Formats: sequence, C-alpha cells, structure tokens
Amino acid sequence: MSADLTFRQPIEDDHARVLAALGPWWGGLKGEAGAKERALLVPRLYFQHFTPTSRLAERPDGTLAAFLIGFVSQTDPDTAYIHFVGVDPQLHGQGIGRSLYEWFFGQARESGVRKVKCVTSPQNAASRAYHARLGFEVSEVLPDYDGPGLDRVAFTRSLAAERA
Amino acid sequence: MSADLTFRQPIEDDHARVLAALGPWWGGLKGEAGAKERALLVPRLYFQHFTPTSRLAERPDGTLAAFLIGFVSQTDPDTAYIHFVGVDPQLHGQGIGRSLYEWFFGQARESGVRKVKCVTSPQNAASRAYHARLGFEVSEVLPDYDGPGLDRVAFTRSLAAERA
Repeated sequence: MSADLTFRQPIEDDHARVLAALGPWWGGLKGEAGAKERALLVPRLYFQHFTPTSRLAERPDGTLAAFLIGFVSQTDPDTAYIHFVGVDPQLHGQGIGRSLYEWFFGQARESGVRKVKCVTSPQNAASRAYHARLGFEVSEVLPDYDGPGLDRVAFTRSLAAERA
Repeated sequence: MSADLTFRQPIEDDHARVLAALGPWWGGLKGEAGAKERALLVPRLYFQHFTPTSRLAERPDGTLAAFLIGFVSQTDPDTAYIHFVGVDPQLHGQGIGRSLYEWFFGQARESGVRKVKCVTSPQNAASRAYHARLGFEVSEVLPDYDGPGLDRVAFTRSLAAERA
C-alpha cells in the first residue's frame, strides 16, 4: 500500500470534501440525479455522529484518497454496519480499501462486535467480488430492500474466527 | 390525543410500511423523484440498527399513524439526533407528534443525553414553527448543509432544564 497516506478520524468539515469526491470517483454516474442520490446517501449526520468508527485517508498534499463510514448497531451491539466506502480510482489495487475495512473490523471487535454488515446494489459486480474476497458472505439479490426499485445485495462478515 | 393508538419500537419489517406512507403523507410532493428522495432519506438501516430510540404508532386496525426515527450520537454521547418524523395528516393537531418527541426526550435523558438535534429544509415553515413550539432553538438557513443545493435549518433542544 502507498506508504505516504495519513489515516484519521473524519470531522464534520470533511463532509463537503467527501461529497465533492464522489462524483469524479464514481465517474459522474447518472449525472446530476446520481450526484443528488449519492449526497442523500451520505448526509452530514454521518460526519457529526458516527466518526469514531469512520476513517479517512489523505495524501501528503491533503487531498482525499479514501474514506469509510460505519457505525455500531444500537439495536444489536453484536453487529456493526459499514455504510459507505470510497477509494480514489487512481489508487485502486493498492490495498487501501482493505486496510480501511480491516481497521473497522479491529475497532468493531474491540467494542465486542461479532459481525459486520453492509449492502451494495446488485449491478455492482466489482463490489460483490471485492466483499467476497474480504471474507463477507453475499446474499441473493433482495428486491426493493431500501424501497421500491432500490434492490440490494447484503453482505455479512463474521468477526468470530479472529477472536478465538 | 387520540386514545386508541398503540406505540411500540419499530422492527425491520416496518420499513416498507413507513416508506409507503411517506408519499400520501407528504401529498406526493415532487412526484416520483420526491418518492425516491424520501426513500433515500429513510434506508432500511434505520429499522435495523436504531430501533431503541425510534417509535411507531398504529391504529387499532394496524394501519400506521405516526413514527419517529432517532439515535444517540456515537461521536458525542451528550447529543441525540432525530432523523425523521411523520404523522398521518388526518391525525394532525392531536399532539401525537409532540408525544413522540417527548418520548424521545425521555429516552435520551435516561441515556445521559443533554441535547437533541434535528434538521429540516428551509422551505418547510410549518416544521420550523413546530420545532420552536417544542422548545428547539432554530438556526439560520445553512446553505449546502447536506450537499450542493441541499440547504437545511438546524434545531437544537436542551434537555438540561428538565434534569435540574
């Protein structure tokens, strides 16, 4: 992995920078509607209220390289959830995403969490393969999971093995 | 307040019912794009991971009357956040919304929370007045708060007075 990245807990002021990165990193997918959809998936509240289990990577010049947003379930303290992860496409293949996930697994495990969940859209085959490589079990396609027309694939990763 | 409502903690299966209610309750505001926007504001994760501080009201026939979705901040345990509240317009003016907020204040206070936050869109004058009546302090309009073009007004309510 690129050795010159700095990893830290995000702060509220990082919200606008992360949103600004989503467009280019997702290749402007679905134009203005896509940008609004991504903004609605990452409201400011995540940068206000879920920072202890979130992480951001920056280059030496301060530009954003990657981020992960997650939280511990308040319904089931055995479970943590990764809401959104992004890595600058120019830095793909260097293990930066994996290091963010593994950091999250470690934080979660310290809090007594035993499994980590997340979802992606069924069209995102790369994300499905990526999560499988990280040890996640992949569900079938779940129709209308997040609402009408918002199908999802769900992932679950046990943290139990490493705790033994 | 209508005496025949049942209040309970939501479960994951309530997600689709709440989404289905948002359209009629918001008068189909902004058509299909508005429906998708509302769905993106209330993903299933809230019904999986933030149920202890969320609440749902049903009529005797099981139809949905109102709901509140909130959580305690994981960055600042002094703070709780109310993400989304809806009351069937046919039941407005009966104090159902107020009872949901007051239930949340009580839950939050028991968890050691000292202030409650939430946001609304600046166009929603009724919501601004409503929150002021509930004891929230109202901010100025915060441009691009949740992203480009997503202006918000922020509310903060102290729980300190009632704790003295």
